[in-house]
Amino acid sequence: MEDTLKFAEATHAGKPQLPLALRLIRNTGVQKRHIVQPIEKTLRHPGFEERNRIFETEAKKRCPAVIGRALANAGLTARDIDAIIFVSCTGFMMPSMTAWLINNMGFRTNTRQIPIAQLGCAAGGAAINRAHDFCTAYPESNVLIVSCELCSLCYQPDDDGVGSLLSDGLFGDAVAAAVVRGSGGTGVSLERNASYIIPNTEDWISYAVRATGFHFRLDRRVPGTMEPLAPVLRELAVDHGWNIGSLDFYIIHAGGPRILADLSKFLGVGEDMFRHSWATLTEYGNIASAVVFDALRRLFEEDTMAPGATGVIAGFGPGITAEMAVGRWFADAPTASTDRVAHAVPASAEEAR
Amino acid sequence: MEDTLKFAEATHAGKPQLPLALRLIRNTGVQKRHIVQPIEKTLRHPGFEERNRIFETEAKKRCPAVIGRALANAGLTARDIDAIIFVSCTGFMMPSMTAWLINNMGFRTNTRQIPIAQLGCAAGGAAINRAHDFCTAYPESNVLIVSCELCSLCYQPDDDGVGSLLSDGLFGDAVAAAVVRGSGGTGVSLERNASYIIPNTEDWISYAVRATGFHFRLDRRVPGTMEPLAPVLRELAVDHGWNIGSLDFYIIHAGGPRILADLSKFLGVGEDMFRHSWATLTEYGNIASAVVFDALRRLFEEDTMAPGATGVIAGFGPGITAEMAVGRWFADAPTASTDRVAHAVPASAEEAR
Repeated sequence: MEDTLKFAEATHAGKPQLPLALRLIRNTGVQKRHIVQPIEKTLRHPGFEERNRIFETEAKKRCPAVIGRALANAGLTARDIDAIIFVSCTGFMMPSMTAWLINNMGFRTNTRQIPIAQLGCAAGGAAINRAHDFCTAYPESNVLIVSCELCSLCYQPDDDGVGSLLSDGLFGDAVAAAVVRGSGGTGVSLERNASYIIPNTEDWISYAVRATGFHFRLDRRVPGTMEPLAPVLRELAVDHGWNIGSLDFYIIHAGGPRILADLSKFLGVGEDMFRHSWATLTEYGNIASAVVFDALRRLFEEDTMAPGATGVIAGFGPGITAEMAVGRWFADAPTASTDRVAHAVPASAEEAR
Repeated sequence: MEDTLKFAEATHAGKPQLPLALRLIRNTGVQKRHIVQPIEKTLRHPGFEERNRIFETEAKKRCPAVIGRALANAGLTARDIDAIIFVSCTGFMMPSMTAWLINNMGFRTNTRQIPIAQLGCAAGGAAINRAHDFCTAYPESNVLIVSCELCSLCYQPDDDGVGSLLSDGLFGDAVAAAVVRGSGGTGVSLERNASYIIPNTEDWISYAVRATGFHFRLDRRVPGTMEPLAPVLRELAVDHGWNIGSLDFYIIHAGGPRILADLSKFLGVGEDMFRHSWATLTEYGNIASAVVFDALRRLFEEDTMAPGATGVIAGFGPGITAEMAVGRWFADAPTASTDRVAHAVPASAEEAR
């Protein structure tokens, strides 16, 4: 946080929007973020082509270990995986990383490839929901989800609007992976999912695609979106016969502090119930589609859920789109070491050095 | 074809690779292509940002009518659609066109958005397969597929390798749409799908992502890929209890003339059985993920399939990835006017003026 404020002050000294931007950055509560390159390199824009090359290099360097841990936690090997959902909005490759992973990590040649680049922060929830759909269609199958968000590679030095400056102080880099098993394992048993788009908000979160790459545009109205989304989450719970205000766990996209504070207020849930999302925000920043996986990791590591405990997973992103799921904690056996929605492991800056 | 050869000769006069490129372009058999802008504009590169702006404008102008016809053919309205799979590798938007379509065409706010940008020409087959999976999971649901491939917006004037020159003479623009209904309708009843990646061919078809946008890279080994893929198609049919050489219809990605000629040879199928794919190639060029939908349209319009007629759909693209499905012709009633995999309508240059 201190470094970010210092860099922002040095880079944008004297600009009228600076004081507001600094206040907003301070309010994020983000204490630490991880970035794949040293800060001096991150702040220089080497061109869109070079940025994509770095994305590819770093993704290939970092994804395998994270995926390996997710598979191990799920008690599976690469050969057991039927589909790979790879989500990232911070680098663009064709073919997608899915092809490289299949070729280099021992996945079967008939693995389904589902790369998603255009759902932004909502892609974490979307990946879980599409994996759930796939396992509903083919109950004996297993889906690997990989989220690779190297947000620092979308830093645009020339963008100095308040929304851009705030984003510069908010987003962090992360790689996460999770496994959704069609049967068995321990974790969140996905029971129902839903999507929702807030009408006519397409331009509230968007990319301007330019020669310099992706320029993130954030509308000032975004922090207020939990008011229209809370009733949608409530309805999903009602459809499932549940009360959204009294679930046992909440895995919520940590878009920013107001998102979390507002949603707990509108749902009538104590802020402590969102503690895993708050911890992700504080310790990693907004890591885009990877947030829900890191919050899930904390649930796995820090809590002891009783079988049948009820919960919700919700990702939010451009559209404005919400991708939501409800489910119950499930354990194959009291000592099971496998996860149904497995370990998510954020990359760290240390690894980059 | 005559115009393309003329432009290629004028632009690349004297280059040693030109004669080979001209011969390869002549061999494609592409007689006509459709492009969203007049040829003079197409040949100028206005920058990646402007190209994406044109993509967005043209997609918004052209998709609704095509989608409207697909819905009408399927006997459905926008309110009946549960998921939209939007595939395109020729323009990048975030949020995806799915958000705009939901807001502007009366789709429900809880419509699932599945945008896919990184599967290239294989995305048509992938979209059909993922729609099949979704309807397997939720048998009462309906999925809209939209393929919007404005390949002319990826023309790169400075790329003059043989692969690039060939591509300049091969690809065409198209918008297509299809509906996969969970039940009812008339069309191909999807029964089984499969994916396959040819090991270690990631760089045979790929994009170089640069400040000038997507640069299509085509390896000279790509035309030879039907030899390893034919056995995979054969195995899919065997798994279904069928003989790949004696199906009633074949909807094959028309990547180029050698793809079609080789595959019919390796499968032991008369070239006439691939006539719809050949017609697409001749009349539209390679329209990327839209090929399979245009070939399907021709099957709907030109053939009279008996209920129970057997067939295969196969898309090929970067990876090298094959996305394949087998199914039977199905009709709700002899006079049914609805389609299970509905009308695909390519855009035309005329519409652009």
